Order: sequence, then C-alpha cells, then structure tokens
Amino acid sequence: MSRIILGDNQYGKAEVRLVKVDRDSPTHVLHDLTVTTQLRGDFGAAYTDGDNAHVHATDTQKNTVYAKARELGVRSPEGFLLDLAAHWQAQEWVSGTQMSAEQYAWERIGEGTGGAGHSFVRTGQETRTAVVQTDGEAAYVLGGLTDLVVLKSTGSEFHGFPRDRYTTLPETDDRILATSVTAWWRYAADAVTPDADWNARYEQVRATFLDAFAGLHSLALQQTIFAMGEAVLAAMPEVAELRISCPNKHHFLVDLAPFELDNPGEVFVAADRPYGLIQGTVLREDTRPAPAAWAAVPAFA
Amino acid sequence: MSRIILGDNQYGKAEVRLVKVDRDSPTHVLHDLTVTTQLRGDFGAAYTDGDNAHVHATDTQKNTVYAKARELGVRSPEGFLLDLAAHWQAQEWVSGTQMSAEQYAWERIGEGTGGAGHSFVRTGQETRTAVVQTDGEAAYVLGGLTDLVVLKSTGSEFHGFPRDRYTTLPETDDRILATSVTAWWRYAADAVTPDADWNARYEQVRATFLDAFAGLHSLALQQTIFAMGEAVLAAMPEVAELRISCPNKHHFLVDLAPFELDNPGEVFVAADRPYGLIQGTVLREDTRPAPAAWAAVPAFA
Amino acid sequence: MSRIILGDNQYGKAEVRLVKVDRDSPTHVLHDLTVTTQLRGDFGAAYTDGDNAHVHATDTQKNTVYAKARELGVRSPEGFLLDLAAHWQAQEWVSGTQMSAEQYAWERIGEGTGGAGHSFVRTGQETRTAVVQTDGEAAYVLGGLTDLVVLKSTGSEFHGFPRDRYTTLPETDDRILATSVTAWWRYAADAVTPDADWNARYEQVRATFLDAFAGLHSLALQQTIFAMGEAVLAAMPEVAELRISCPNKHHFLVDLAPFELDNPGEVFVAADRPYGLIQGTVLREDTRPAPAAWAAVPAFA
Amino acid sequence: MSRIILGDNQYGKAEVRLVKVDRDSPTHVLHDLTVTTQLRGDFGAAYTDGDNAHVHATDTQKNTVYAKARELGVRSPEGFLLDLAAHWQAQEWVSGTQMSAEQYAWERIGEGTGGAGHSFVRTGQETRTAVVQTDGEAAYVLGGLTDLVVLKSTGSEFHGFPRDRYTTLPETDDRILATSVTAWWRYAADAVTPDADWNARYEQVRATFLDAFAGLHSLALQQTIFAMGEAVLAAMPEVAELRISCPNKHHFLVDLAPFELDNPGEVFVAADRPYGLIQGTVLREDTRPAPAAWAAVPAFA
Repeated sequence: MSRIILGDNQYGKAEVRLVKVDRDSPTHVLHDLTVTTQLRGDFGAAYTDGDNAHVHATDTQKNTVYAKARELGVRSPEGFLLDLAAHWQAQEWVSGTQMSAEQYAWERIGEGTGGAGHSFVRTGQETRTAVVQTDGEAAYVLGGLTDLVVLKSTGSEFHGFPRDRYTTLPETDDRILATSVTAWWRYAADAVTPDADWNARYEQVRATFLDAFAGLHSLALQQTIFAMGEAVLAAMPEVAELRISCPNKHHFLVDLAPFELDNPGEVFVAADRPYGLIQGTVLREDTRPAPAAWAAVPAFA
Repeated sequence: MSRIILGDNQYGKAEVRLVKVDRDSPTHVLHDLTVTTQLRGDFGAAYTDGDNAHVHATDTQKNTVYAKARELGVRSPEGFLLDLAAHWQAQEWVSGTQMSAEQYAWERIGEGTGGAGHSFVRTGQETRTAVVQTDGEAAYVLGGLTDLVVLKSTGSEFHGFPRDRYTTLPETDDRILATSVTAWWRYAADAVTPDADWNARYEQVRATFLDAFAGLHSLALQQTIFAMGEAVLAAMPEVAELRISCPNKHHFLVDLAPFELDNPGEVFVAADRPYGLIQGTVLREDTRPAPAAWAAVPAFA
Repeated sequence: MSRIILGDNQYGKAEVRLVKVDRDSPTHVLHDLTVTTQLRGDFGAAYTDGDNAHVHATDTQKNTVYAKARELGVRSPEGFLLDLAAHWQAQEWVSGTQMSAEQYAWERIGEGTGGAGHSFVRTGQETRTAVVQTDGEAAYVLGGLTDLVVLKSTGSEFHGFPRDRYTTLPETDDRILATSVTAWWRYAADAVTPDADWNARYEQVRATFLDAFAGLHSLALQQTIFAMGEAVLAAMPEVAELRISCPNKHHFLVDLAPFELDNPGEVFVAADRPYGLIQGTVLREDTRPAPAAWAAVPAFA
Repeated sequence: MSRIILGDNQYGKAEVRLVKVDRDSPTHVLHDLTVTTQLRGDFGAAYTDGDNAHVHATDTQKNTVYAKARELGVRSPEGFLLDLAAHWQAQEWVSGTQMSAEQYAWERIGEGTGGAGHSFVRTGQETRTAVVQTDGEAAYVLGGLTDLVVLKSTGSEFHGFPRDRYTTLPETDDRILATSVTAWWRYAADAVTPDADWNARYEQVRATFLDAFAGLHSLALQQTIFAMGEAVLAAMPEVAELRISCPNKHHFLVDLAPFELDNPGEVFVAADRPYGLIQGTVLREDTRPAPAAWAAVPAFA
C-alpha cells in the first residue's frame, strides 16, 4: 500500500472576541468583532512528527489580534484583516493566510442624557462578515453578510414548474416571499487599496440588496437572488462577483375553511423546516475566475 | 406508604408560529408572533387514567390561535393573548389559562420602489414578550422583553466590595458595562382595559430603559437595574412592578504590557462565560403582591 | 405616588465551567460541570445606592467554585453544591443561597491502548441538573435532568378528546410517541445527609423513567408523565415529589396516497414547532408543600 | 461594462426530517435522518427570467424523500442518498446532484417490559453525516461525523513552538487535550457498490478514531489529527482520503496559588472561545485528487 501523507492543511485561532473603543473624542466609536486567523505554510512536521518548531502558537495568534488592534486601530473588518494578513504573511514558514471576521452593529442611545457619547444598543439583524486571504503577494477580499431577514407580504408568485409523479404543490400567484440572505462578494483586485472605504461599500451593497428585493415582483426566489446580485454589479464596479444563498422561509396560508372562515392572504404559518435552499453566483461575462479567493466559503457546485 | 397523586399541572400547544398580515390598505401591516397556550383545570384523569374526555387537544389549541387571528385580528401581543384567554376560560373544564407570546419587529424597506408598501426587513435586537394569565374572572398581564443588548464604553465603576480569602478582582473606576436585559413588568389591574394601547406602553418602557441605562453613571450593575425599574415606575402608573434580570457581559481590558503597549480603555475581550447574573424586583411600597401573576416567570428568591 | 423600593433580588456568577480530574490512581475520574451561584441577603444598598460594601463580587464567587473543587473535591453535583452553599451561608450579609449545576457524562475509551485510564468520549443525550437552595438552617435539594429524548414507535394512542368548532385532529390508535423529558425531583428533607449517594439516586431515577416510558401502553402523554413520576415515588422513598415537563415531539405520518403508496406506520415527518407541552407534578398525598424548594424552577400553575 | 450573467448555482430542499420505522418484526428498527437535496443543471432561466419550466419544485423534492423512503427503505444514509441521487440524475434538465444527510443514533430501552421491541432513547454525542454527489455517470460518496467530543486528562504536551514579540504562552508537558472531531472521508470509487455495508464502515471509522485519539501520546493536536486519519487509511482500503477539523477545546489549569492551594493537574476551566482550530487532509501518496467530491465541504486551503 502507498505511503500515507499530509495534504492541504491550515490552523490558527478561531472566534477571538475583540471590542475596540476609539476614545479620541468624548463621542466614543465602538468596533465589535469576532476574528478568526488561519495560517498555511511549512507546518507539516507538527502533523507527522509532533514537531512544533514552525508552529506559531494559536495563543500567539490571539495575542496578535489584540496587539494589532491597539497598534493600528480597527477602522473596518476588511482593513483590519488585511493588516493581520500582512503581519502573518511576513513571518517565516507562512506561505498563505486566511483571516475572517464577523462584525456586530451598535446604535447610539441616551441622547440628551449624560451618557450620550458612550452608550449603545446592539441593533440590526444581519451580521457583517469578511474574509481576507493572502498567498504570497496576492490578496483576496470577500465582503459578506448573513442573517439579513427580509419579507414581502405580496408581489411574489410561483407557478409554471413541472409536475411529476411526486408533485403536489399548487401553483400560486400571490404568496409571502421571505428569506434570510447570506451573501459573499469578491472585491476586484484593483479595488483592494489602502484607502478603500470598506464601510461605505458594505452599506451600499446592503442597501442595494434591500431595494432589489423590495422592487422586484418575483416569479421565483431564484429570480430575486439574481436581481440582487445584478443590481450590485450594475452599481459597483469594485465588486467582481457575488455568491448568494437564500433559504425560502416558507409562510403557508392557513386553511381556515374547516372553521367557516376565509383567509385572503392574511393568516400564515411561518415554517421552520424543511425550507427551500436556493443558491447562485452572479458575475460579469468577462470576469476571470478566482478560485483561491473562495476557498473559505462553501461552493455551490 | 401514602397514595401517589397528581399535583399542579397544565398543558397546551407551544411555539405556534403566527404571521398575520393586515391588508386593508396597500400599505400592509405585519404581525409576527410565536404563541404558546396552556390550560389549567379539570384534566387530572388524562394523567391518572389516560382518559381524554376533557382534554382540548393541543392541535385544537393551535387551530384556535389561527382562527382567532382571522376573526379578531392581532393588534398587540397582550391584546391577542387576552382574546385567546377569554376564549379558553369560557370552555368547560378550564379553570385557568396561561397564554404567552414573543413578537419580532420588522421595519419597512423599498421606499421609492414598487414594493414599498409590502416589503420588510427584520430589525431590532430585542424580542418583545408577553404573558397573560387568567383564573376565573381574574386576569394578569405581564409585558416583557429579552435580548436588549446595551453597552456603555465608560461611565461605570466597581469598587468598595469586600475582600476575602478568595477575592482577587481589582477595583476599577472605569470599565465597560454591558448587559442583555431581560425584563418583565406587571400591569396594574386597572390598566388591563379593552382600549389599552399596549404597543405604546411597550415602546415607553423600552425607551425609558435605554435612557436610564445611558443616563446613570453606574457604581454597580445592581444600581443600573434599580434605576431602570425606578424610571419606569416613576413615569408609568399603569406598571405595578418589574422583575429585571441582567447578565454582566464582562469586557476585560487586555493586558498589552507584555507587548510594550499601553491600553487606556481601548482594547477589550468580550467574554462569554462565566458572567455575573444580577436580578431584582422593583415596585412601589404600597403595591400588593400578586404571586399568581408571576407563576409563568422565574422567581428571584 | 408611593415610594419606589427594591423587592426580591439575588445575584451571583452564572455558568462557571469546571472540570475536575481525580488523579489518585492511573485510572482518572472526570467531573464536568457548569455551576451557577446566587446569593440572597443584605444586598439592597448596591441596588439603591451603588454601595458595594456587602457585595461579595461575582468574581470572588467564581474563584470560590474552583478553590472548593480543590479543597473538597467534587463527588456529585448535589454534594458539591451543598458544600458551596454551606460556605456562602456562613458569610456575613448572606441569608440564603441558590446553587445550581449541569453535569455532562463521559465514557471511557481506548481500552487496550496506552491511553485507557485517561481517555474519554462525551456520551449520553441527557444533561444531569441539580439545584441546592439554603435559607438559614434549611437546605433544599432538587435533582433533575433535561434533554432525555425517548421514543416509542408503537404502543401509543390518542382518542376520546372533545371536538369543538376548531377541532380537526383525527383520532388514532397507533402513533409514534416521542418526547424530551425535563424533570426535577425534590429530595425529602431527611434524605439530605452527608453520606447520601447522589449518583446512585440519579441513576435510579433515570433508569426508572426509561422503564416506565417503555413499559406503559400510552393513551396520552399526560398518562406517561404521571406513570414516570409514580414509578419513581413507588421505588424511592427519598424522593418527595417530581415536576415533569414534556414536549410532545410530534411525528406525523406522511400521506403517501397521492403517490399511490400506502404508509402502514412506517414513514414520518419529525416536526419541530409547534409542539404539545404537557407538564405535571406527582407527589404523595401526605407530602407537605415546600414552595421555597421550587423557587429556582418554573411553576406549572 | 460587460454583460452580467449567472455562474454556478444549485437549489433544492434543505433539512427534510425523516423518521423511517421498519416494522417487519416486533423488534422495530428506527432510522432518523435530516436530508437535504440539491440539484444542478439547466435551471438558469429561473434566475434570469423567473421562468420555472425546468424547476422541479423543492416541495416535490421533499415529497420524493418520503416516497423513496417507503418504496426503497432506508438501510443507511449513504445508500439512501445514492437512491435519491439516482432518481434525480435521471430527470430531465438535471446534470448533477448533491444529496446530504445527518443521522441520529438511538438505543433500545425497556428490556423486560412490554415496550422492549419498540422503545428507544437518543444516545451518542456525535452526529453521523454523509454527502453523495453525482455528475452524470460519476458518483462521489463522503462519510462523515461531527460533534464527536473526546478528551484526554493526561498524555498531551505542547512545547518547542517559536516565541516572537507576541508570544506569552508557557510550554507544558502535561495538559488536558480535548476536541470535538468533525471529519469527512471520501470512499474510493471502487468501494461505491450496491452491496456496500455503509453502517459497518462508519462504525469502523468511528472506533478507529477513538483508539487513535486515546492511544497517541500527543505533542500537538496536529499530530493527533494526522494519527487519526493515518489509522483509518491503514485499516480501510475503501477510504481514499480524510479531511479532519478539530477545535482545540482549551482546558486551562486554574491558578489557585492566590488561595494558598496547589493544583497538580486537577482543577480546570473549560473555555468556550477563542479556541485553536486545526485542520488537515490525510491521504495516500498515490491518491488522485477528486475536487468534485469535495464541493459540498469547506476547503482547508
């Protein structure tokens, strides 16, 4: 039998909880992130021989997150991850990195009280996400979000699908369409610059998603997904492609006929499981594939 | 040995997911609740003998939630639970009820698009909660909320506590104070009226909590809890008492000295577990206890 | 308006993760608990004035958990909580305590390897729980468990229930009965002794539950609950009463008729929500109520 | 600007809860699975034009899961997914499929009672997983497991790692090693046969993991991961390669010195976050890569 060897591998510290307060003025600014760092490189001997001579300890990786937050600040998830990646890429034995983060949103409270400048409530439903990967000189940046829960109470149809032996679903020309958007978008290589305003870009993608979701009279959740991606690409040349994954959060009209009641699109069961799961990639025809950028994110095919 | 008997008991349907759309105008209104109904009464034979002659099936209780949503509408969680309780209280063998709900908040999106009147994004962090209990003629209403996550980046101290053999915590005059508020408030009996504006009351409690949290320079999370309750009671005669439970979501200042960095209140670890857990009841001195109102909610002592 | 005051309150450290290894022999013994400590007493000034002079810091409470684990060992959750309670009850300003724990089960692995005496896999589905409360001299002990998931694929019926306007459920004489048992049992005062074998008692309750669940041909989940409690009381004089709470984890027979297939009790949907929720107390006729023992646990009525 | 197009995509029904009871004898057999089906093929028009003419509804996919369970039975997750994949691969417009499942383990209870043949308790910690993908004639089978939580209370060291400016971790020659194994293994193409005993294979992988984990005196979690994979490949020619991902569930020795207590490896904090995250692929030197088999599973690099 052939020799048994180590293949692809990576390691690091996951879910480092970092809160950074900018206190330069009485109006504090809050950055609330969970950071995961992963290194790739010449680490095989730890696996095959328990030899840790090259293994930058995951505890050291954690310390580095906190130290870099102090040294460099945290203006955006993407910017901070690029800083971390640059640090690690420069270390011996490291050939590549995968840095990822979640960011949680806070809103100011207490206007008119003594706590106005330093009091916050966590808000928003969606979580902002980001992944930075480097491989030598190359750097790939994905922006993302998860748990953006949206619903249309009308303006959605579903019909014209094939009927086979196992089909029982009736057609409908008016249903609730609801989903929880998970999306990743890859920034074009020439958009990864030191002065990029990652926060403004994020807000633009999010706002574009919401408008596209609301604005489309939908014949299929597939169509809504494509419209969301298309709207971002049409508006933002700095985005090269998007992967969007949407559960169809079914809302079933309750049959009230047994109780001698009608139900003209008013009373629904919000179902948990199972759910439709619709996934798609949207890109420009001349976009060159960048598989290395997507290694950290589930593929659709 | 003495005879073995059935003691306190109740049963019903839990977590009925109800979405009600008001479509009276092109601007739809969305009500998104999870409802649990529990009945008390002459149901002992089901336990002791498997005799279901008195057992209103939990499936029937679920159907009733949906049918009543259509018959009566859902203007507020408290109002809808009172409607459900009245229905069940009137049934044979039922001596008391416990109706509870969670409600999720949605915000309108798509302004300027064709979907403006019927498109929504789930928003807010906290979940609104309510419990209605009836016992014959008596009705008790609790309003509540959970997962209201708030933080102050300064304006919080903790010192002056006793030091014993097992005490290592240093004193501090500047720390992050963060918590996730869970609160229940009991409405006074004379505030439980058919025309009560439960939604406005809820908004007032929530806003009062946020202002009290922000406004107090805090010497202990205990003090903040009391201040939040006190502010509500001072402003709202319709509230008789509150139970507030707050984890102290510790944010530990990271020691950056090993890296030759200072850390003037800027870089923190947000810890998960363990956490302080501080709980208190706030009421008026002349408030008469209403233990029956609180049966559905954990006691603090 | 009347003066605003503090009512019932308690505070402490929640979810202290403790793993204690007994290394007295090469065959290690593992104790894996999550402990929560709560104190009651003369702590009002912290709430009303931010005065911490009496407040044993929650950090000190955490330290005490770890120190007592080393000083006294951890033979059982109940015994360890009694030790913690005794420590705190003896402190100034403390009038009562509430100590609670979850314990996780591990099984030995690696028989025949060099790791046999010190290698484990987490096992079992249910979590063992315990609550000890003290009030001056009085001590109350609750044993418990949660997430004990059991299922019968036949031997369960449900019929004979009342049919009203909102009833659509058909009767059945053969269904799947499945639940996830949450139970609390109160030990009789004279069973709370220093030499009590809490672990053996726990195992006996658990085994009795499983046999009672399996052995009863069930006409209602209510009947199964009562049978489980009754069996424990019949076998164990040291148990004074039980509170059992069981979701009816519905398994719906799939209607395969549209596909020209029969379904003789073979193919089911396991539903998540909603679920029946059946709760009951079982006790001996001459048991004296002990409401103080139950303050930490939800009431059923 | 270039035309905007659809890239990779797939869709289907997620988390179909299926319980299949084999009732051929009084000793029932229980199969408890959550199944997700995803189709790939000529479905682009649904995205770009809302044209559903090719879209096998996700509701139909759900119905198919239940119907096939009745028609063909469910002997193993892998076998059942292969049956589902064969059904869908044969449909018009389908070019490829991704079928996945979780399976939950149950143990018999009630020996000596009337319920012995049909009563069960959910058991085990780990969840068995499986993914089948087809692409025309090709079929790829991954077996897997998640949440297999294991711990060694000694026999683990960690030292010899590089020390840089941000390193503070001390070296240790005796620590607790604990992890929750997530693993995927790819079956060799010639092992995907109609008569394969997928259940026996699963049990062999699981048992081999446990023995390897226990038996290795570990110098790094990396070494343990490689040893687990190597042991499986050495014993099972039908396995072509494995991807193993292990959090390092840190157990920190509590510093009891401030309380004048020693702590010779006895009292630990089990930490939640952050955690080390170690991932690796183990394969034979002559194994040909099969990237299509891994599309459903996160990559490590």
